[in-house]
Amino acid sequence: MAYEKLKEEVYAANMALQASGLVVLTWGNASGVDRAAGVMAIKPSGVSYDVLKPADIVVLSLEDGKTVDGKARPSSDTPTHLHLYHKFTSIGGVIHTHSTCGTSFAQAGREIPCLGTTHADNFYGTIPCTRELTDAEINGEYELNTGKVMVERFVSGKIDPLDVPGILVAGHAPFAWGKTPAKAVENGIVLEFTAKMALHTFALNPAVRPISQTLLDKHFLRKHGKGAYYGQPDTAK
Amino acid sequence: MAYEKLKEEVYAANMALQASGLVVLTWGNASGVDRAAGVMAIKPSGVSYDVLKPADIVVLSLEDGKTVDGKARPSSDTPTHLHLYHKFTSIGGVIHTHSTCGTSFAQAGREIPCLGTTHADNFYGTIPCTRELTDAEINGEYELNTGKVMVERFVSGKIDPLDVPGILVAGHAPFAWGKTPAKAVENGIVLEFTAKMALHTFALNPAVRPISQTLLDKHFLRKHGKGAYYGQPDTAK
Amino acid sequence: MAYEKLKEEVYAANMALQASGLVVLTWGNASGVDRAAGVMAIKPSGVSYDVLKPADIVVLSLEDGKTVDGKARPSSDTPTHLHLYHKFTSIGGVIHTHSTCGTSFAQAGREIPCLGTTHADNFYGTIPCTRELTDAEINGEYELNTGKVMVERFVSGKIDPLDVPGILVAGHAPFAWGKTPAKAVENGIVLEFTAKMALHTFALNPAVRPISQTLLDKHFLRKHGKGAYYGQPDTAK
Amino acid sequence: MAYEKLKEEVYAANMALQASGLVVLTWGNASGVDRAAGVMAIKPSGVSYDVLKPADIVVLSLEDGKTVDGKARPSSDTPTHLHLYHKFTSIGGVIHTHSTCGTSFAQAGREIPCLGTTHADNFYGTIPCTRELTDAEINGEYELNTGKVMVERFVSGKIDPLDVPGILVAGHAPFAWGKTPAKAVENGIVLEFTAKMALHTFALNPAVRPISQTLLDKHFLRKHGKGAYYGQPDTAK
Repeated sequence: MAYEKLKEEVYAANMALQASGLVVLTWGNASGVDRAAGVMAIKPSGVSYDVLKPADIVVLSLEDGKTVDGKARPSSDTPTHLHLYHKFTSIGGVIHTHSTCGTSFAQAGREIPCLGTTHADNFYGTIPCTRELTDAEINGEYELNTGKVMVERFVSGKIDPLDVPGILVAGHAPFAWGKTPAKAVENGIVLEFTAKMALHTFALNPAVRPISQTLLDKHFLRKHGKGAYYGQPDTAK
Repeated sequence: MAYEKLKEEVYAANMALQASGLVVLTWGNASGVDRAAGVMAIKPSGVSYDVLKPADIVVLSLEDGKTVDGKARPSSDTPTHLHLYHKFTSIGGVIHTHSTCGTSFAQAGREIPCLGTTHADNFYGTIPCTRELTDAEINGEYELNTGKVMVERFVSGKIDPLDVPGILVAGHAPFAWGKTPAKAVENGIVLEFTAKMALHTFALNPAVRPISQTLLDKHFLRKHGKGAYYGQPDTAK
Repeated sequence: MAYEKLKEEVYAANMALQASGLVVLTWGNASGVDRAAGVMAIKPSGVSYDVLKPADIVVLSLEDGKTVDGKARPSSDTPTHLHLYHKFTSIGGVIHTHSTCGTSFAQAGREIPCLGTTHADNFYGTIPCTRELTDAEINGEYELNTGKVMVERFVSGKIDPLDVPGILVAGHAPFAWGKTPAKAVENGIVLEFTAKMALHTFALNPAVRPISQTLLDKHFLRKHGKGAYYGQPDTAK
Repeated sequence: MAYEKLKEEVYAANMALQASGLVVLTWGNASGVDRAAGVMAIKPSGVSYDVLKPADIVVLSLEDGKTVDGKARPSSDTPTHLHLYHKFTSIGGVIHTHSTCGTSFAQAGREIPCLGTTHADNFYGTIPCTRELTDAEINGEYELNTGKVMVERFVSGKIDPLDVPGILVAGHAPFAWGKTPAKAVENGIVLEFTAKMALHTFALNPAVRPISQTLLDKHFLRKHGKGAYYGQPDTAK
């Protein structure tokens, strides 16, 4: 089987996404990339997780988005994922869910400020929210343009996608990513959990302020980068 | 066994309803229709899901509501279902639950505006709420009149029941439907999930506005109707 | 084994209580009564549900509260249950939990008005909340006095305990009851679910009004009493 | 195997912590102490609960914090636990989680007043929240200083750590403890549950007052100390 390792990895990420409880019905998808081979792999569109198999994963050319392996129609969100891989060259996996609290923030058009160390351990600052798409963007290449407003927010905000591995698309739902499909799933779980606690925190204290930059630095950097001292030596990242 | 396929389908929908977590104790029921045979089938009243079998499903005449197959008393909501099948001739399945968030909106007497694409993917605009029944309607043929206020809201609002496959009955709970009993269950799940996210969204942004008509069109129509491109070719609907 | 049937019934109710998700750790207990034999049976105090067996259930004299069967110390709430059986002579089972939303209403000192038909199907009007106990009542026979403030609320409000099979003890948590221990568990589940939906309903519409007396009558009376037409003929109650 | 009993106990507490639902991903840890042997034992850092074994538990000297048994790097929160054992000499187990509602209170910087008997049964008064750490404390020995602000709050408030077996670290999350690792887990569960009900109680009644000192005394003291009459004679504590 061609691209077997990538398809297994993307299959596993899709199943982990469902096991996480972030996915209702068939909403949600995970993808991965093999930059050396010039391909990305993604869940087929609208297929139930109950019957999904590694062989169902669709492999497409990173260059032109055409299917190179697989019989099914790829997720309708494929052009969004493809654009993220093009512009965020450090990432290796992307997930999209309509997870309850992340989606509620997206619907409310509110960004998620860093209110505590759970957030700081995984996202280096505010989880941003895109602007709304224009009518022309919606009526044009909608899925591609969804990718573009996400990238636009990172470029204008000068944010490194590995520092803040996720975003809310206004009126829609979250996307998250990471160095691997498995890490993208983990970041999607963290985003949802962070959103849930932010929802409760705002209810308890509407005037709450983000934690200090010093505390944010401490927590993010003890888990990421050169000075990391969290986890075991070979897994610290 | 007479009407075997219909009874199996309705049994499966009732069990899926319970598995969905939308049902507490024995509250909730699913029905289906066979228009060619002129019958509808529904869960027996007050029977525990633990012991429910396909053979327990009650089959009634669409014309006069009299039982044509089955020994048990049909759900007390049968006249409501029957009226929906009479007036919404495009539907093939109906469900009723007291799902937590949908019921909370019904109790609050609030409709659920379309606040995001999760909603737009499945409901083409606001999920409406009926008016309250009058005392005469309650003291008269209550279950039939419950069906009538739902239909009244769709007629007065000029809403196609397949565009908006569900409604909240004020002070009561949601009903949902679809082309099949299985699709009715799915729409009931979506209604509850949409209500849950709307509840959180209003908490985060009390002044939130519905998404644009352009985004609503885009999402609903990419999954439904002739231009649909979501899912696999043979399952797209 | 003496009182075998009663002990089995009370054991089953305690296990159902835990399976319902209403109980955290060992908080909560169910009891039952055999009025002909002049005894009540209750869970032993602080025993984990994992190891509870029918033989562990403690049987006490209804007259003087002394143990007539069983080696363990009965639940510390025994005097409360005993008082309810003395004063509410129509009931056969009592449960007590610290279920999340019911307890939140009790802590807030708010009664639960009848906001919808889920409530009306099972509780014939507002679920009341007791007054706070005085210091003298707390320092005296506390558990007995907890029973007394519940009964006081029903007497002063002229409420039939089978019409409203539960109450909130202010600053504490709910008690519920029914004709049997199994029915008491069911009413405890309904109370919690009703409280959860009331919490959400108030968030969506702080000015919400109870449903009409006509709708309350319709729903309660179609499930209870002589005109009942819900459920199967032999199980309708 | 050296320290076998302690490692088993700490392993069991970590697994109980995960089973409790308080832990997301690998966030959270439990430790225990053997004061006679002069050691504490704790979960290794960033290890998944799926693969954790008793042999993975790391044992350290209580005196200097150096590993005396185990190959893995201990939890990065080890200096916090160690400080608690040094200053709270009556405790035998400590847990740390980012449980949803406890963390939301910590992020909001709000203490949890005693709003009901569930709280009073286990925590003898307000669950306190630390002050924020200074930049110097964050940039210095951060984990040790996290322990210090907790102890500072108990010393300044003259609180006995066995009366109030837990605290919220501002902008971070809860810590809880007890005479044994198992009891620390139980107190962590109670803290989360208490926080969840307080969140709902404040939503229902923003002006709610704590329960009376008399009721607090009654509930805490009937489960703890010499006059306790809850549970079975040999397990009452």
